[in-house]
Amino acid sequence: MEPTLAQLGEDRAIALISEALADLPLPDGWIGIGDDAAVTTLAPTMKAVTTTDILVEDVHFRRQTTSARELGWKAIAVNASDIASMGARPSWGTVSIAVPGDCTAQWVRDLYLGVADCARSVGLAIVGGDTTGSPGPLMISVTLVGEARNPLLRSGAQAGDLLCVTGTVGDSAAGLWLLENKATPPLAPEEHDALVRAHRHPRPHVREGLAMASLIRNGGPSGPRIAALDNSDGLGRSALILAQANNLTVELDAERIPLSPSLRKLAGHAAIDPLDWGLWGGEDYNLVLSVDPQGLDALRDALEAAGGTLLQVGRMIEGPPIAVLNRNGLAEPLNKSSAFDHFRSA
Amino acid sequence: MEPTLAQLGEDRAIALISEALADLPLPDGWIGIGDDAAVTTLAPTMKAVTTTDILVEDVHFRRQTTSARELGWKAIAVNASDIASMGARPSWGTVSIAVPGDCTAQWVRDLYLGVADCARSVGLAIVGGDTTGSPGPLMISVTLVGEARNPLLRSGAQAGDLLCVTGTVGDSAAGLWLLENKATPPLAPEEHDALVRAHRHPRPHVREGLAMASLIRNGGPSGPRIAALDNSDGLGRSALILAQANNLTVELDAERIPLSPSLRKLAGHAAIDPLDWGLWGGEDYNLVLSVDPQGLDALRDALEAAGGTLLQVGRMIEGPPIAVLNRNGLAEPLNKSSAFDHFRSA
Repeated sequence: MEPTLAQLGEDRAIALISEALADLPLPDGWIGIGDDAAVTTLAPTMKAVTTTDILVEDVHFRRQTTSARELGWKAIAVNASDIASMGARPSWGTVSIAVPGDCTAQWVRDLYLGVADCARSVGLAIVGGDTTGSPGPLMISVTLVGEARNPLLRSGAQAGDLLCVTGTVGDSAAGLWLLENKATPPLAPEEHDALVRAHRHPRPHVREGLAMASLIRNGGPSGPRIAALDNSDGLGRSALILAQANNLTVELDAERIPLSPSLRKLAGHAAIDPLDWGLWGGEDYNLVLSVDPQGLDALRDALEAAGGTLLQVGRMIEGPPIAVLNRNGLAEPLNKSSAFDHFRSA
Repeated sequence: MEPTLAQLGEDRAIALISEALADLPLPDGWIGIGDDAAVTTLAPTMKAVTTTDILVEDVHFRRQTTSARELGWKAIAVNASDIASMGARPSWGTVSIAVPGDCTAQWVRDLYLGVADCARSVGLAIVGGDTTGSPGPLMISVTLVGEARNPLLRSGAQAGDLLCVTGTVGDSAAGLWLLENKATPPLAPEEHDALVRAHRHPRPHVREGLAMASLIRNGGPSGPRIAALDNSDGLGRSALILAQANNLTVELDAERIPLSPSLRKLAGHAAIDPLDWGLWGGEDYNLVLSVDPQGLDALRDALEAAGGTLLQVGRMIEGPPIAVLNRNGLAEPLNKSSAFDHFRSA
């Protein structure tokens, strides 16, 4: 029988976690798990960029349908995506867990192996955390600190700026549909796997964020004007947030919204409007941004040089802070109430 | 009827929290709640010191016996104490909560008012957090970053160094006893209040930690040799940790362990060995440290100049990494198994 974490006790639980993170490099002079606090450094003249997320079992994930390793990846990815959207480089982070009595040591080891997988992929050091029991659901709390010379904010957009994303949208939602429905859709195995992977292993767009920030830094006064956020709750919700942060209307062009061929194929099979996934699916973790028209080409070049892509999906226009969808020449307001609320649904 | 946080929804919950934290100053140029991540800075040449703690309802606290405001204070205090033990200045932090459906908006507001109280007392900015629902217990996750030129570690002690604490021990446990037992002990009202306050409003020893660190910084090669940690789980447990971190035996002198007169009076009334509270009570949040004998006077002077105190309670000696209690000339090993384990008890 694999022991539960509670049977191991606190000291051995910490030892087990340290072991799972052992292959993750820690820069010279840094002190990680083991003292009252971790000791790290920022490069000179860099600002710190801090983000935090709490993931709760049966609100954000289910242990029955999410593997521990996949959950560990996601817990880091969602935070690294916030760091990326600020144009910052992930630097150090902490991961805390509250675990129910039935949770095995093996499960916790796998969780931290997933944490290490994603941390390694973005150059992040895990320097600490806290481990405790939970009389209820499992919870994971992650805090990441990144460093940036010029953080990219959500604000600063102007009317006329173009709205863009750094990848297709809705694939994660389509992947979740595949995991939840035992249908046999007309997808090639690699199409099926790509959608499931988009849901299980989202890639935080750190390279893209750094490419954007470096352009601003090096571009001087002629560098592009960029406002950015990460696309965690769906393009529709991101557009609304950008509208509110800039007191402008965001107009999305339905025919420009980048949907993958696999998603379109699956949506047809499932009799779902593919735009529903594209606008409200959530968990895509690419970046949504506005850029001034003069800056578009330079930005696209920088993103492509970094291995990424830039896709225009709409524009910022004068008007109330709402998002509208332009579909076949008809602009209709996007309805915020259809967005996900973590207090309400699982 | 006061609405629950779930009835408010996520956006209004965040607005309510921002409002509760509104009076807390944010340094110029910093960006707090509202973007994907917070933007902060470290003073040049300073190292970052990061700590995190997760507090779970019915493991670390009960909503029936702990007020929201008191819990908010404690959530910050326990982390600030870790920062203090590193000789660092609290700089910025995040506070996340997972709240059950029955939790009112008023309760959450009070929690963050308590957070603001303690943050203000130690010069800490709260720059972000996450808010979500919980299908089970309430959980609070706090991460703090401090800054230090020369962080104080747990290691580096040598045989012959003196073991000290920066305040009396066991008062928090005695205060908890008062809250849990409806007895009428022979205490003056101010004695009663001081013990209860030690439990409800522990003061993180930030001033003491900074005084220690500044001494090392200014003292050059003749500055004292200090190894320090915070006293969160009781002096006995702290002594064991220091023994293990330095591979030395820690010898505590029973008659030197600083117990307040109020604690002694209450222990007599409750028929409890006062040393049980002093050694295993926990939640005192002063600092436990070793210092070389030549450095003792300079350290005491520095702590007293900062409004603190330094009390010698034992010494580091050659031997296995255990803690022993010297009582009436008889040294007996301290038994770790009597220490608190967060996987086991509430």
